[in-house]
Amino acid sequence: MLDHPRKGRLLTEDDIIALEIGAGILGTGGGGNPYIGKLRAREMLRADYEMRLLSLDDLDDEAQIVAVGGIGAPLISFERIKEGREGLRCLRALEHRLGFTADAIGCEEIGGQNAMEPLVVGAMAGLPVVDGDGMGRAFPEMQMTTYSIYGHRSTPSVMCDPHGNVVSFDHAITEKWHETMARACVIAQGGASVLASAPMSGAFMKRYAIPHTYTQAIGLGQAVIDARKTHDDPVATICAREGGQHVFSGKITDLQRHFKGGFNVGIARIEGLDDCRGSQGEIVIQNEFLIFRRDGEMQVCVPDLVVVLELDTGLPITTELLRYGQRIAVLALPCHPLLRSDEALNVVGPAAFGHPDITYAPLAEKGAA
Amino acid sequence: MLDHPRKGRLLTEDDIIALEIGAGILGTGGGGNPYIGKLRAREMLRADYEMRLLSLDDLDDEAQIVAVGGIGAPLISFERIKEGREGLRCLRALEHRLGFTADAIGCEEIGGQNAMEPLVVGAMAGLPVVDGDGMGRAFPEMQMTTYSIYGHRSTPSVMCDPHGNVVSFDHAITEKWHETMARACVIAQGGASVLASAPMSGAFMKRYAIPHTYTQAIGLGQAVIDARKTHDDPVATICAREGGQHVFSGKITDLQRHFKGGFNVGIARIEGLDDCRGSQGEIVIQNEFLIFRRDGEMQVCVPDLVVVLELDTGLPITTELLRYGQRIAVLALPCHPLLRSDEALNVVGPAAFGHPDITYAPLAEKGAA
Repeated sequence: MLDHPRKGRLLTEDDIIALEIGAGILGTGGGGNPYIGKLRAREMLRADYEMRLLSLDDLDDEAQIVAVGGIGAPLISFERIKEGREGLRCLRALEHRLGFTADAIGCEEIGGQNAMEPLVVGAMAGLPVVDGDGMGRAFPEMQMTTYSIYGHRSTPSVMCDPHGNVVSFDHAITEKWHETMARACVIAQGGASVLASAPMSGAFMKRYAIPHTYTQAIGLGQAVIDARKTHDDPVATICAREGGQHVFSGKITDLQRHFKGGFNVGIARIEGLDDCRGSQGEIVIQNEFLIFRRDGEMQVCVPDLVVVLELDTGLPITTELLRYGQRIAVLALPCHPLLRSDEALNVVGPAAFGHPDITYAPLAEKGAA
Repeated sequence: MLDHPRKGRLLTEDDIIALEIGAGILGTGGGGNPYIGKLRAREMLRADYEMRLLSLDDLDDEAQIVAVGGIGAPLISFERIKEGREGLRCLRALEHRLGFTADAIGCEEIGGQNAMEPLVVGAMAGLPVVDGDGMGRAFPEMQMTTYSIYGHRSTPSVMCDPHGNVVSFDHAITEKWHETMARACVIAQGGASVLASAPMSGAFMKRYAIPHTYTQAIGLGQAVIDARKTHDDPVATICAREGGQHVFSGKITDLQRHFKGGFNVGIARIEGLDDCRGSQGEIVIQNEFLIFRRDGEMQVCVPDLVVVLELDTGLPITTELLRYGQRIAVLALPCHPLLRSDEALNVVGPAAFGHPDITYAPLAEKGAA
């Protein structure tokens, strides 16, 4: 059993503020806005709760880690305040159900609002949060984690809603079935619930979690804050940190968005500015920014990250906040190698998002450019 | 603990054949067609399984009874064959979960196909089925049982689908929330699953189950079979047995059906024949036959039973089998007094079906006419 309560680095309010920005950037337009989660986390720190971040290196192989995350429509959870203890109730119900005690809390998705939920639950339970996640970005469905891709069965799981209802997914024949049933249920519950998945071992997480993504997101957010203070270019700062490329600058000239098959889908067209004058950019949206094309040629594609920032401030823009006339920078960040295997591309490659015609061409990896 | 395995009356193939007709009549047009269930039950009897019917009088107060029933869209479960052991898996998962052993199987809904499911599960588990149910007819939603109405909390429950997925509803803040979440989940599972509810005590069932409804349905079906053999009038036979009234005979001249808010809703208009020549009948459909009006005046209304039979054969017609030009008899059968209390009318009265303008006027009770 892990000597858990006192392990890990204590997070500060400044870390949470930076995490909001970093998680927003890694959300690639989706994953929900981390703003409400930031407020919750900050209030907890002010009320003397402790938030600890535990490196994967410090995790015992035998430790049992429960990943928790919000499930539902991101826009709903931005507008509808949580009851607040949904995640803790999930954790306790799962522990009671399976007869174990969690050693640490895990994160499913560092991109967007699910960066915050594990911190809140960890603080309430007195447990550290593992510094890593299952996506390294945001994806719209539960089976799209490296945990699921590399063999973890996420059932039995427990889902709690703000009303007090509790549902267990005892067994799903596939990870996708788990997603399908939980998705239907959360919609019935009002669209903003929390789910805790079956525990993972420390040994499994060390191998298959995308590592250090809390540290990465906090550092990224802090770099943007610092760049703005010193009037440096935040876009260049982000690219330098992440081994990314600034692939386009432009003004949004056309925006089509609609709801199809449970996804927010659409296209944003961008007229080039500055170095890109005379070029046309196009972003394909499917909850997240999925694909970027320049003058009809694909430049970046899922699972690599298409990040959209305000050109002037370097702050991330989510898909629902795109507006006609906005001046934006499009960045391409390489995804983690765990998302580039054949197993992973089957689940999170372009074909999994309905683009079987597109062959994934990986961006140069961080440090390789 | 109940001395259960050898108690109760053994059912025969003839009983099952009669039950198909009787359950169809008490289904008031809904509850699903019991035909497939009859085939399953008959095959089990031929394979030497035993089906036992246990009178409420023979039930120990301390006995623990698990009610099981199909949930989903009746039409789907008529066209899509079950895996077959969903109900048994639900029972076992619930027993394991709560750490008890069921003494008998209960029925939620005698009307339609849910008359058969408990018999199949009871036969597989070697347990008798209690002679009674929670509706005395068919209703479209789970909270519409006398069990729920009179205080049983049906969670924790377990739902199994034909694929092998298992979901538990651990806690629902109301019975209606249980219905809402289970309904969403079963739709995701393909529309034809089985659910086992939290156990009831023998003492509770003696007080709040609608009694003897298996015996009633089997007797009713047998009476129709006998009347057809002896060329007696099956419609008159049913009315005599059930204390009901033959309120209309006619030909369907107009039929409107559509899907609204999860219900099959519609109206059937009937031109009078025989004694009813010159009159117009109208049936309001909401999964079941809900209301019957003659020349604009309400004659029968939920929770009393509006039963539609083929005029010539006395065989029940379900809402989806109504056709233009059909010659039908409309019967009114009084519901059980347990459905007529204020508590019950709040859940299964006309207002609960979206007709707050209609005041329920009870039919004369069985034996009182």
